Amino acid sequence: MTEDFVITPYQVNGDVDYDALIERFGTKRIDDGLLRRISGYGPAHHMLRRQIFYSHRDLEWILDQYDKGNRFAMYTGRGPSGPIHLGHLMPWAFAKYLQDTFKVKLWFQLTDDEKFMYYDRLSLEEATEWGYENALDIIALGFDPELTNLFLDTEYIKTMYPTAIKAAKKINFSTIKAVFGFDNSNNIGSIFFTSVQTVPCFLESMEQGRKVPCLIPCGIDQDPHFRVTRDIAEGLGYYKPALIHGKLMPSLSGSEKMSTSSKNDTTIFTTDDEKTVRKKVMSAFTGGRVSVEEQRGKGGDPEVCAVYQYNAYFFEPDDQKLAQQCADCRAGRVLCGECKTQLFGKVWRFLEDHQAKREDARSHLDEFFVRD
Amino acid sequence: MTEDFVITPYQVNGDVDYDALIERFGTKRIDDGLLRRISGYGPAHHMLRRQIFYSHRDLEWILDQYDKGNRFAMYTGRGPSGPIHLGHLMPWAFAKYLQDTFKVKLWFQLTDDEKFMYYDRLSLEEATEWGYENALDIIALGFDPELTNLFLDTEYIKTMYPTAIKAAKKINFSTIKAVFGFDNSNNIGSIFFTSVQTVPCFLESMEQGRKVPCLIPCGIDQDPHFRVTRDIAEGLGYYKPALIHGKLMPSLSGSEKMSTSSKNDTTIFTTDDEKTVRKKVMSAFTGGRVSVEEQRGKGGDPEVCAVYQYNAYFFEPDDQKLAQQCADCRAGRVLCGECKTQLFGKVWRFLEDHQAKREDARSHLDEFFVRD
Repeated sequence: MTEDFVITPYQVNGDVDYDALIERFGTKRIDDGLLRRISGYGPAHHMLRRQIFYSHRDLEWILDQYDKGNRFAMYTGRGPSGPIHLGHLMPWAFAKYLQDTFKVKLWFQLTDDEKFMYYDRLSLEEATEWGYENALDIIALGFDPELTNLFLDTEYIKTMYPTAIKAAKKINFSTIKAVFGFDNSNNIGSIFFTSVQTVPCFLESMEQGRKVPCLIPCGIDQDPHFRVTRDIAEGLGYYKPALIHGKLMPSLSGSEKMSTSSKNDTTIFTTDDEKTVRKKVMSAFTGGRVSVEEQRGKGGDPEVCAVYQYNAYFFEPDDQKLAQQCADCRAGRVLCGECKTQLFGKVWRFLEDHQAKREDARSHLDEFFVRD
Repeated sequence: MTEDFVITPYQVNGDVDYDALIERFGTKRIDDGLLRRISGYGPAHHMLRRQIFYSHRDLEWILDQYDKGNRFAMYTGRGPSGPIHLGHLMPWAFAKYLQDTFKVKLWFQLTDDEKFMYYDRLSLEEATEWGYENALDIIALGFDPELTNLFLDTEYIKTMYPTAIKAAKKINFSTIKAVFGFDNSNNIGSIFFTSVQTVPCFLESMEQGRKVPCLIPCGIDQDPHFRVTRDIAEGLGYYKPALIHGKLMPSLSGSEKMSTSSKNDTTIFTTDDEKTVRKKVMSAFTGGRVSVEEQRGKGGDPEVCAVYQYNAYFFEPDDQKLAQQCADCRAGRVLCGECKTQLFGKVWRFLEDHQAKREDARSHLDEFFVRD
């Protein structure tokens, strides 16, 4: 097991070895059998087919329950500390696929409290405002308002607090140190926070007054929170939440995770204008050769190419077309400039549409938000 | 400075040396000059005259502000984990004296969350129920409903949470360890809790939208919470709260603090019936001698006598009468049985009246409670 990378909800450093993570975290791979089973409910999402959502906890059990008529609820979230980029949208688009396929309720948490407590620079009021801004991107993805409850922690705390402190009573600081790598210098709000993050797993059960299974689609970096939750769930009278884990969408610079805090020209934000998007895509790191001649002769390397990754993760859902792109690159039949131009076209078409829906969402916030 | 006793909000062990505490905690004694100043606002309470409320932080400043027309608010509280005994009533009766004298608003916090998180045996629902039961005793003392806001943490958390996490962001676990003697085995809710205990100091400021001075009458064991609060208050945009500290009412067994968890026959609960109260008072530890003869000859010792302490703390507000009792005891003119019978009469007259007011309070809860 390699130990040369760090991945927690609060830190992603080094080149993440996603296979090693399955071992390190003790999760299960979504294997061919499970993929076939999922395909039985409707066409499997390309993120499943391509092992971008690749790991899980208790997903078979969730499907067993579903097959018996015991529909699960879903829970995912966002820490609102800044603008939304394409890496954020990826797991949410996947959550929408799950909602569409299984027709299930989604609890979408905006953790303004968490982000405020973690970032020196951020005031609580700013975090809450980012929550409302980010909600526009979430709603723009097309979630069903009848099946989606969006909430900000600071606006839903009265509902959550009793369960949060019941969870907190079962978690000591030793656990927090071990799971999140915290120490005595962490502030007591951040130490407490995982209790608040635990509650949405149980909100559907609390609302229905019975145990309802819960599935959490999330980046695998968020798994530690829910390992803690799973340890205490049954003691609180609920099912352990199940998880389905995604890889983290790389940035345009290639390997590292896309991030708001990394250099802005390698991260595409949902509110970027056409010119900015073009510039960012055209500057992407690719697997091309030093000269056109060499690339025609030896071909490029899609494995390390950010443009290829963008297509694989998000912008080319058609497996055949993606395979063709890959083959064309390897054979030197296509040059990086063409690929970038093509990707830019897809990204901008997506964003133009998204930006219109995002503006439209401003008048639909109340259809989605729940408050105390 | 003696170190052979421990006193924190969560532990009182050994014989508390209240003089040493002033040094250990770094508070100030209420000296004759300050007592005279307080007497200028109305007759000084017997707990002040007898140095039962004996220590403070910034009380002069609170009075300076008051003299300039900047009225303070008060904050005190109760951790609702069981029934109320006379030791609980003592500082609240003092708070009522302050309210009557200065005509100031009182925020009265019921920390059901705290007590739930600290006691294994206690469910949150039980703690909340105790909160309502305890509120009857509080209301029975005669606080002005126009000037008193009672609240349960779980019912007021939406109002308090934003300020609680702003406080939490400024407090790290090192501080909590140092101040409360916690370690890694403490649960993360109890670690977070002092942030919630901080907020009521600022509730009047939050409500008025300007900085309002706050005075906290409390047992000196609660001082550590507010040392933390005072360190961060100005950074949050508020005044540091001022404090006035009381000693802890001893039990009928003599030296130790009255406690719900100590043997029930040394603690008088507000709902005890006449027979029970009589039995408890008549079994009190006194400063009497082994025989009537010896006591007539040598006299008793009021210093160690629980009956004398009860009179001094609560049941004999008249200084002359108390001094007479003391002299009669020392001179052997009065025997313990007589003193106990007399105390029982006072206690039961008080409790009979209190119990009637306590029942009456059931129909007045809504005049006192504030909720999100």
